[in-house]
Amino acid sequence: MTRNRALVYVEHPDKGIEPAKHFKVADSEIDLDGVALNGGVLLKTLYVASDPYIRYRMREPHLPSFCPPIQLGDPVDNSGVGVVLRSEDPKFKPGDYVAGYLEFAEYAVYPGKIVHGYKMPLTKVDKVPGVPLSIYVGTLGMPGTTAYQGIKYFASEKLKSAKKMFVSGGAGAVGTFVIEYVKHIAPHVKIIASAGRPEKIQILKEVGADIAFNYKDEDTKKVLEANGPIDVYWDNVAGPTLDAALKNLSDGGLIIACGAISQASHDENSVVRYFDEVFKRSLTVRGFAVYQGESAAVVPKFYEEIVPLVMQGKITSREQRYNGLENAGKALADVHVGANVGKPVIVVAEE
Amino acid sequence: MTRNRALVYVEHPDKGIEPAKHFKVADSEIDLDGVALNGGVLLKTLYVASDPYIRYRMREPHLPSFCPPIQLGDPVDNSGVGVVLRSEDPKFKPGDYVAGYLEFAEYAVYPGKIVHGYKMPLTKVDKVPGVPLSIYVGTLGMPGTTAYQGIKYFASEKLKSAKKMFVSGGAGAVGTFVIEYVKHIAPHVKIIASAGRPEKIQILKEVGADIAFNYKDEDTKKVLEANGPIDVYWDNVAGPTLDAALKNLSDGGLIIACGAISQASHDENSVVRYFDEVFKRSLTVRGFAVYQGESAAVVPKFYEEIVPLVMQGKITSREQRYNGLENAGKALADVHVGANVGKPVIVVAEE
Repeated sequence: MTRNRALVYVEHPDKGIEPAKHFKVADSEIDLDGVALNGGVLLKTLYVASDPYIRYRMREPHLPSFCPPIQLGDPVDNSGVGVVLRSEDPKFKPGDYVAGYLEFAEYAVYPGKIVHGYKMPLTKVDKVPGVPLSIYVGTLGMPGTTAYQGIKYFASEKLKSAKKMFVSGGAGAVGTFVIEYVKHIAPHVKIIASAGRPEKIQILKEVGADIAFNYKDEDTKKVLEANGPIDVYWDNVAGPTLDAALKNLSDGGLIIACGAISQASHDENSVVRYFDEVFKRSLTVRGFAVYQGESAAVVPKFYEEIVPLVMQGKITSREQRYNGLENAGKALADVHVGANVGKPVIVVAEE
Repeated sequence: MTRNRALVYVEHPDKGIEPAKHFKVADSEIDLDGVALNGGVLLKTLYVASDPYIRYRMREPHLPSFCPPIQLGDPVDNSGVGVVLRSEDPKFKPGDYVAGYLEFAEYAVYPGKIVHGYKMPLTKVDKVPGVPLSIYVGTLGMPGTTAYQGIKYFASEKLKSAKKMFVSGGAGAVGTFVIEYVKHIAPHVKIIASAGRPEKIQILKEVGADIAFNYKDEDTKKVLEANGPIDVYWDNVAGPTLDAALKNLSDGGLIIACGAISQASHDENSVVRYFDEVFKRSLTVRGFAVYQGESAAVVPKFYEEIVPLVMQGKITSREQRYNGLENAGKALADVHVGANVGKPVIVVAEE
């Protein structure tokens, strides 16, 4: 028998995530040689991701939202990478690396009970030379796909004539992808980007932002007034940052509503005061969630277009690693207070 | 010499419009036979309109907005209908009826000094049998064009597959046009509509709303929960009504942001709390102002398509008349407190 450590969800939060309160590290045992596979595979988990949207899954299960709830008593699950130990599925053989929607557990059998209908089947992945497999939970995973889906589907046309773009939350895995990908497909566009820590401002510059600023030190509205108007705004945060953007968009401007991290923890201060700019400036707002809606039509082209850009160093990655599931709760909380620098990756086991 | 009464703008409001404080009725004299035309026309004003957006023009002139400010000491101006008394412009002759952007004055020479670059040249109009000429400031004027531009350009395609639509501010000149026009082009769509007075609920039913409710008596969110989800939301009001709609849109739903009357008077309570639904539900929001932006491309087809519908009784009108410029201030204020029923028309002189 082998220890099987997991991070279990035990209490619904009111506002922010408190790791010690809302999660529990639970050890059980698993018989790696004998556990029934029922036609599936037994995986050893290597990496799982922390993403801001997980906060939306931490809710009373009767409340509707865009993503399924996590049930109290179940392990957290999210995108991850594992290695196949045993398989009854002809698509996989022992030693294969797979990416998919994985449990926060050292070992698990898939399809498991908690994949909650999420449309992310296990996919065999190849190691990209020189890059850790954890890239499949970041640049080549959900965050990268999010950025690609939003830019490719909603902004490609507009970017041809756009002069300036603003990206909030620019130093995260989605934000850096957006900046680098826009610089690749529309190099004439000047990019203004914000983040909330000095190390992140450095990242914004590394990935090619023309103007990088710390929204805690500088007033977003003033920065945009001085450098705008902006034609496209990629919104990861909503709230007051969105308000600042609304006041500085050009007529006919485009907002891509990708996330609202300022609202994810139900902060009552994160309201939008200048929604009326949407009609005053003839704005278009396109909201989307990754893998969902009409914009998901571009997702099948993702690997084909992006893997070469990763290999050429045009799309880059950076991660902050959390070692062991005992630190996974902190990783889930950190993204809501901006404490991480780079994509938060929980290393469950070494490659 | 003839008396020339005008409504002059004399003070910027902080919040709502107070007629006695912000306007002054000023009488001057005009020599109708001798006043210089400088190549233009002398008009006798018949009707001018009160529209909610005028509140946005009542501001310090250095503040930017989507419409030009009215200068202190100038007459208010807005869409209106007049009759030509004298003309040096070959397009017009005495006795012609014209619609355009007119001063709130009994007589004026056009092009005048205060048309502020508004792209609404004087247009010769024909009397529609059985209908007062004031229809050119309502159903066949700016409000009708607003409704037409928004539905035709942004919603025509979506309405083909939509099942349900919600219209707020449904009893106003824009709202009734939206309801009747959607029922004409997409009769399968069930329409839920709101207004704030019993007489207005009656209007909603007359124009074909399937579910008509008074948002002061019934909770908008509950009505939409019981009758939704909605696929299209025509937003005239923003604020809490928009929030209720955001929570009840179907995935991939469409919001047409036409106005934000709840915000026009800078009411701090009129914030949007659930903007995050835009990404959660993969929503599209299309804002526009009449005659502006790419959606204005459909405006040239307006008369051709709509005049026959008016003559067939498919698009109807209702107005509340205010007699004389001495009551024009009240007409401008009433639209912000829902006091009018029907399009507010200021009768400056009888036809």
